[in-house]
Amino acid sequence: MTDDITARHNEKMRKIKAARDKMMATKTEEKGLIMVHTGTGKGKSSAGFGMVMRCIAHGMPAAVVQFIKGNWDTGEKTFLRDRFADEVRFFVSGEGFTWETQDRDRDIAAAQNGWKIAKEQILDPEIQFVLLDEINIALRYDYLDIDDVVDFLMNEKPEMTHVCLTGRNAKPELIEAADLVTEMTLVKHPFKDLGVKAQKGVEF
Amino acid sequence: MTDDITARHNEKMRKIKAARDKMMATKTEEKGLIMVHTGTGKGKSSAGFGMVMRCIAHGMPAAVVQFIKGNWDTGEKTFLRDRFADEVRFFVSGEGFTWETQDRDRDIAAAQNGWKIAKEQILDPEIQFVLLDEINIALRYDYLDIDDVVDFLMNEKPEMTHVCLTGRNAKPELIEAADLVTEMTLVKHPFKDLGVKAQKGVEF
Repeated sequence: MTDDITARHNEKMRKIKAARDKMMATKTEEKGLIMVHTGTGKGKSSAGFGMVMRCIAHGMPAAVVQFIKGNWDTGEKTFLRDRFADEVRFFVSGEGFTWETQDRDRDIAAAQNGWKIAKEQILDPEIQFVLLDEINIALRYDYLDIDDVVDFLMNEKPEMTHVCLTGRNAKPELIEAADLVTEMTLVKHPFKDLGVKAQKGVEF
Repeated sequence: MTDDITARHNEKMRKIKAARDKMMATKTEEKGLIMVHTGTGKGKSSAGFGMVMRCIAHGMPAAVVQFIKGNWDTGEKTFLRDRFADEVRFFVSGEGFTWETQDRDRDIAAAQNGWKIAKEQILDPEIQFVLLDEINIALRYDYLDIDDVVDFLMNEKPEMTHVCLTGRNAKPELIEAADLVTEMTLVKHPFKDLGVKAQKGVEF
């Protein structure tokens, strides 16, 4: 590394820092965000649970409603229920993916029960962050009415409460309503290419 | 909901379940995965920490090496260091983004120290999952040699150890080497559109 390259690099970084400091200075507003994690890639739920971990660290009471993975013995459920029952309220509404239950009417009832719980948690002034895990699946199959959900989030959600909604195929209405939308895109997946099965720690 | 619609839906779901069961039956192989979370969207690190949470739940010892966010008082660092020191080894190599430090040589030394620690953790037979948080930034600026990193992951990583590498601008060599690559794509971001600053629980 020559001194010249180092000097040019440091000058470039100084400019980025200046631009970033200027940008951040305008970001004084705090508000509760409506966040969506969608797409066919991995990490939609994991990133939601990563935020739950951050909330625990900061002493921000949080709630999780799992709409679809109900009967799965997931690491996140075990972890939060066994160790953080005081910090995180954990609810399960769904009973597995619909192709496991084979009963659409029961799935609809479960999704609607989950949404009822979700609204209560979002309206609870104690709760600062609510993760609605896989709710997009329930919305996609019209187990829940998208207009009801969007109307509630836009008009009844307390201003400072963050809500994160996950699942592939997010509806356009939800994307429009959201403050922050991330699409997880599958670039490469071992299930498809290599015949590797779902593994502990990684997938659940 | 008419009985007819319900019947058609149940039939469709039965077919999906059959196809999925068939697909899953071939996924008997277990192996340690090389995973990459890249892209300009959010959730790259959060999803990595969500997997760390799952590892804790399953009793799988894990290690984290943070390459860039060293001096930030992040929720995930506080959380893991204060509460899970027995389950997760947490290392910090970087001292903040380079535009914070303004010293390229120091950044290179920090990144190389981080990579040395990373290799030790990956080779440690006790450790089952290693998160190399923001290592892609160090690779992008050539603080670390991409060929060294890829060669180590492909040839020296123990077969059953999972490694997750995060950060935008993942190098093509790393994508080629990885088993699973997810690109987090920014669809909408409040920093850009609304002047909302980074917030506790969500961003850090």
